[in-house]
Amino acid sequence: SGGELALALASGMPPAQIGFAGPGKRDDELRAALAAGVLLSVESTGELDRIAALAGAGRRVALRLNPDFELKGAGMRMGGRATPFGIDIADAPAAIAHARGLGIAVAGFHVYAGSQTLSAAAIVEGQAATLALAAELAEATGVEIAHLNLGGGFGIPYFAADRALDLDAVGTGLAALLADRSPRLRDTRIVVELGRYIVGEAGIYLTRVVDRKISRGTTFLVTDGGLHHQLAASGNFGTVIRRNYPIANASRFAAAATATYDVVGCLCTPLDRLGNAVALPETQVGDLIAIFMAGAYGATASPAALLGHPPARELLV
Amino acid sequence: SGGELALALASGMPPAQIGFAGPGKRDDELRAALAAGVLLSVESTGELDRIAALAGAGRRVALRLNPDFELKGAGMRMGGRATPFGIDIADAPAAIAHARGLGIAVAGFHVYAGSQTLSAAAIVEGQAATLALAAELAEATGVEIAHLNLGGGFGIPYFAADRALDLDAVGTGLAALLADRSPRLRDTRIVVELGRYIVGEAGIYLTRVVDRKISRGTTFLVTDGGLHHQLAASGNFGTVIRRNYPIANASRFAAAATATYDVVGCLCTPLDRLGNAVALPETQVGDLIAIFMAGAYGATASPAALLGHPPARELLV
Repeated sequence: SGGELALALASGMPPAQIGFAGPGKRDDELRAALAAGVLLSVESTGELDRIAALAGAGRRVALRLNPDFELKGAGMRMGGRATPFGIDIADAPAAIAHARGLGIAVAGFHVYAGSQTLSAAAIVEGQAATLALAAELAEATGVEIAHLNLGGGFGIPYFAADRALDLDAVGTGLAALLADRSPRLRDTRIVVELGRYIVGEAGIYLTRVVDRKISRGTTFLVTDGGLHHQLAASGNFGTVIRRNYPIANASRFAAAATATYDVVGCLCTPLDRLGNAVALPETQVGDLIAIFMAGAYGATASPAALLGHPPARELLV
Repeated sequence: SGGELALALASGMPPAQIGFAGPGKRDDELRAALAAGVLLSVESTGELDRIAALAGAGRRVALRLNPDFELKGAGMRMGGRATPFGIDIADAPAAIAHARGLGIAVAGFHVYAGSQTLSAAAIVEGQAATLALAAELAEATGVEIAHLNLGGGFGIPYFAADRALDLDAVGTGLAALLADRSPRLRDTRIVVELGRYIVGEAGIYLTRVVDRKISRGTTFLVTDGGLHHQLAASGNFGTVIRRNYPIANASRFAAAATATYDVVGCLCTPLDRLGNAVALPETQVGDLIAIFMAGAYGATASPAALLGHPPARELLV
């Protein structure tokens, strides 16, 4: 995405190693990425035409492919269906020929079949399918694959019933796949995308209790934060059924849970819910509530300006 | 809410006529509102205690009540259940006594039983119930109701099957209710809240098509905007089943709809959908797509910083 691109450029990463994906790249973004030498993940033949028009011939790109499979158990599935992401695998040979006709070299592929799965087997299965797909496509089209982005999918445990992903199993499985990979992939730089997995668990959202009240037998903790800071935790970002993120009273970590609360934000909308029927220690006005798993799709994925309340402050500790 | 308060103060409205509601008011917000002479909608006895501590005795407030009824047909129901909003009607007499004990005068009530209904009958029924409830509570407690906020609920037609609210019917119904109102409400200032109803239809979101592509038989229009500008239109703000907002090709208003498109945003997430199977004129890259009903819960209710794309620009025309 554009944000990832900006971050990567700011971090001084060699641009050729950065993928820039996203189905809706504007011309100014394409121009900036091309000028920086970024390896673009091209998502359509129309995008190939625009790159040719903006940069002329001689560019190297990766093609993002919409595979025939999807990531099993994924929180968000992105392959095996009609999507705006990438080029249908059936159309890939024609797209590669189209690129060649424009003087653009296809230097690799990008497959992102889904995100947020906790099944190592599903991730390895998706990686196996992607390696096979890339090798077959290279065989059929003569593309030399310098770069292969296997996508992500590495999930983190948001909910009570979740078990953390077995990373060792993913590593073992991927190592076996790579040891056995097609000669077409011998010199390929293999990439995985781990944004949420790396930073998601590292972030904690803190909000202070400003009121405690009972309505029809339910005790509410009303906080000074809410969905304008942590939309995902409120259940309003891509989830059909709201479930609680891990939540704690950060002012009383040592105390046993002896009460049950509904934890809500300060906004005047019923959507602004941070926890339903949460077991917590006896909690007072002034206590800090912690919501975990807030390091990805947190503040930046939230409507910070909603109803004019101040945005969340982000601190690096 | 805080935003409404700031807007109202900036507009020079007499502060005593402004309600400031929201279950999670911080002390600094309370202090600012009290200093400006704003009539606070108090949502709990805890809030009464804080007002007394911050401002001493002699303040006038309204009590927000959680009624026994809810607004029928409302997109969002907020009464007749356990909620963080207001004081349960059963607890209202005790709360009024508590206020008196603190030297705070209860000068009125506020009931907001739900939002976004297109049924005039439901709105008038809710208003009737609120007027009756206020009169009964005044009778039981001796409160002199200078101010009564009947809430809102006036919906706008977002979806294809929706019919616009019959405002005349609401007016006729409310006029009859007021003509017949309790003597307890004879000198009461009656207030309704019409935020969305006034500004929702006045806003149009425009986004430009940057790509057109086919995946598995579906033609996608990919735009340079998306849910980071218009979260509600993407179906990710309080709706369980996604439905299309009214949408048009603003570059070809006069042309007949001859094609069907899925309209998506530029973000690399499947959530970023602005229209499913939309009938539009033949649409080209560069065309502007218009999404209507964007004047309320639009840009400020969207995660503007998501993935580092530029925010929507807001223009007053």
